[in-house]
Amino acid sequence: MQPSHTITVDLGDRRYPILIGSGLVGGYDLSPFIEGPDCLIVTNETVGPLYLERLKKSLGGHACEALCLPDGECHKTLAAAESIFDALAAMRAGRDATVVALGGGVVGDIAGFAAACYMRGIPFVQAPTTLLAQVDASIGGKTGVNHREGKNLIGAFHQPRAVLIDTGVLDTLPDREFRAGLAEVVKHAAIADAEFFAWLEANVGALLDRDAAALGEAIGHCCEIKSAVVAADEKEQGLRALLNFGHTFGHAIENALGYGEWLHGEAVAAGMVMATELSGIDPQEGERLRRLLTAAGLPIAPPDHCRGGLRAAMDLDKKNRRGRLRFVLLRAIGDAYLASDYSESRLDSVIGPAGAEPAGDQP
Amino acid sequence: MQPSHTITVDLGDRRYPILIGSGLVGGYDLSPFIEGPDCLIVTNETVGPLYLERLKKSLGGHACEALCLPDGECHKTLAAAESIFDALAAMRAGRDATVVALGGGVVGDIAGFAAACYMRGIPFVQAPTTLLAQVDASIGGKTGVNHREGKNLIGAFHQPRAVLIDTGVLDTLPDREFRAGLAEVVKHAAIADAEFFAWLEANVGALLDRDAAALGEAIGHCCEIKSAVVAADEKEQGLRALLNFGHTFGHAIENALGYGEWLHGEAVAAGMVMATELSGIDPQEGERLRRLLTAAGLPIAPPDHCRGGLRAAMDLDKKNRRGRLRFVLLRAIGDAYLASDYSESRLDSVIGPAGAEPAGDQP
Repeated sequence: MQPSHTITVDLGDRRYPILIGSGLVGGYDLSPFIEGPDCLIVTNETVGPLYLERLKKSLGGHACEALCLPDGECHKTLAAAESIFDALAAMRAGRDATVVALGGGVVGDIAGFAAACYMRGIPFVQAPTTLLAQVDASIGGKTGVNHREGKNLIGAFHQPRAVLIDTGVLDTLPDREFRAGLAEVVKHAAIADAEFFAWLEANVGALLDRDAAALGEAIGHCCEIKSAVVAADEKEQGLRALLNFGHTFGHAIENALGYGEWLHGEAVAAGMVMATELSGIDPQEGERLRRLLTAAGLPIAPPDHCRGGLRAAMDLDKKNRRGRLRFVLLRAIGDAYLASDYSESRLDSVIGPAGAEPAGDQP
Repeated sequence: MQPSHTITVDLGDRRYPILIGSGLVGGYDLSPFIEGPDCLIVTNETVGPLYLERLKKSLGGHACEALCLPDGECHKTLAAAESIFDALAAMRAGRDATVVALGGGVVGDIAGFAAACYMRGIPFVQAPTTLLAQVDASIGGKTGVNHREGKNLIGAFHQPRAVLIDTGVLDTLPDREFRAGLAEVVKHAAIADAEFFAWLEANVGALLDRDAAALGEAIGHCCEIKSAVVAADEKEQGLRALLNFGHTFGHAIENALGYGEWLHGEAVAAGMVMATELSGIDPQEGERLRRLLTAAGLPIAPPDHCRGGLRAAMDLDKKNRRGRLRFVLLRAIGDAYLASDYSESRLDSVIGPAGAEPAGDQP
């Protein structure tokens, strides 16, 4: 089976393909990306029962072992990475062994980090199974685990050999998680591609119906945008930070609500609306963003009751960064820039008064 | 205070200096290599009391915190790296924080690995305090910790910003450790520089007396050899493997005796003699190596009682590598090459019969 879209992440001698299509897990031969004889599939207890056996068919004659991690962000720990080291060591895996991550962003981040560190780096393939991982987390080589003091505090840059995106596996993705993934799709359009944004406005219904052609198109666009950014700025010295649009506010929302209350994509959706308000662009552009997110079933403002916590989280963030917050702002839909000279009074009004009426419009 | 020797490891935009001289710890200003305001010195309970306060003088006005690890290879664990993550997180260290490793190879390897992983990589400076770390471990960016199934199984390539080699701190190094470091000095000469080997034959006495000028000269030569190899092959795709001369046998000796029985350098010394025998070069060259190592107070053969264990360890190593062992062999002193087509019968005779007379000459 051939992919409907193939995108190359151009990192010189570490370039790799993103293969997109329906039915690729089990239907596409990954053998060319598996170097040595040993292969460890890392998955989780939710995804494993659904797709592990199918994925093995993509790995041809390679001797595969599988490690099933518990599901959830709270398990994205150094201990989970250690369980992968243990599994690889027990297999007596050498430098030519390959780790294949089958799951969402959490599985991909942990497995990628373990592959980055085992014998100072072994080959690694991503098979993302959530929309969020397919359009964002699985591409670009950011791997890591959480520390109790911060998300992704421990990690590595380690590029995969290939990313296999099967849009068919999204059929089993819970609706709320699917919509959270759409937030990152909207993000890619908002920062870099006005035409794609317009396409999303026209096709959000087809996406919500999980139409295979629409999904392939949308995921392909996101991967093109992200690949170009990663190829230009692999280690996030500058440009790559644009991918954090909505994330400064989003992280503060997650923090204020308590992690796990809102999904990451939901917090990013509300965060993008806040960042757009801070940008001070044409109100009609802000209205387009709110309408699209609302159509995708996503929140466009944080819950009122967390405004106080939100302000506290941002103040702490600011203190930790020695007084300077950086935001990704918009000049217009499709045109983002990085700014640390935002207006403090505008920021105040975007966050809104603790316990009072929210500053953002309600759906 | 200025270094007596400065060598540059030429890795493009990640190039860094190795600064060598007596009195540099406390006497040389490291500020230009410290990026942000935060600095964490990682040391151990043996070295810290001797040199921590002195090193702080080299860090100018930077706010320094210090973390003291327990001393010894058995503490080179993921848990030790985690204690560094905890310390950095407690400091709220950002991406511009610097980790400074003050100690031997164990401290440098753990601290470097933690610096590689914290926020996906923060700046890192090496201040090695053992001869082994000064001529080998601190240069080239190999970092890592041990796993119960193997040494350095978990690690990263992460180059330091600078390596500060104070030959004066060797004054407090125990004699046995100093001699073990000389084994790696001899190794550098044996694989790459016949002239330096002859210089060592003439100056081994001055080195054993820890003469500052002789030490600066020897360490400078080693750093030049290692820097050139690292610059040509950072990730050990080929050439860099030559630095493992004596190490295949050496690791087997350490394994057979139980780790910690012999020091790494002692095992490498005997391992180099065995590798030279396997090379089948002019016996006079082998005799020169044995004489130099003997003059340095190093062993030139494994203990008789471990020959059986040695064979078992090498057989296991062979099995793990799917039947192929790779050795660094010599064409002559100063001219090494990588070989997997060695003579099995010669290997047999080099290892010697279990429980019988040793194959190697005795001092």
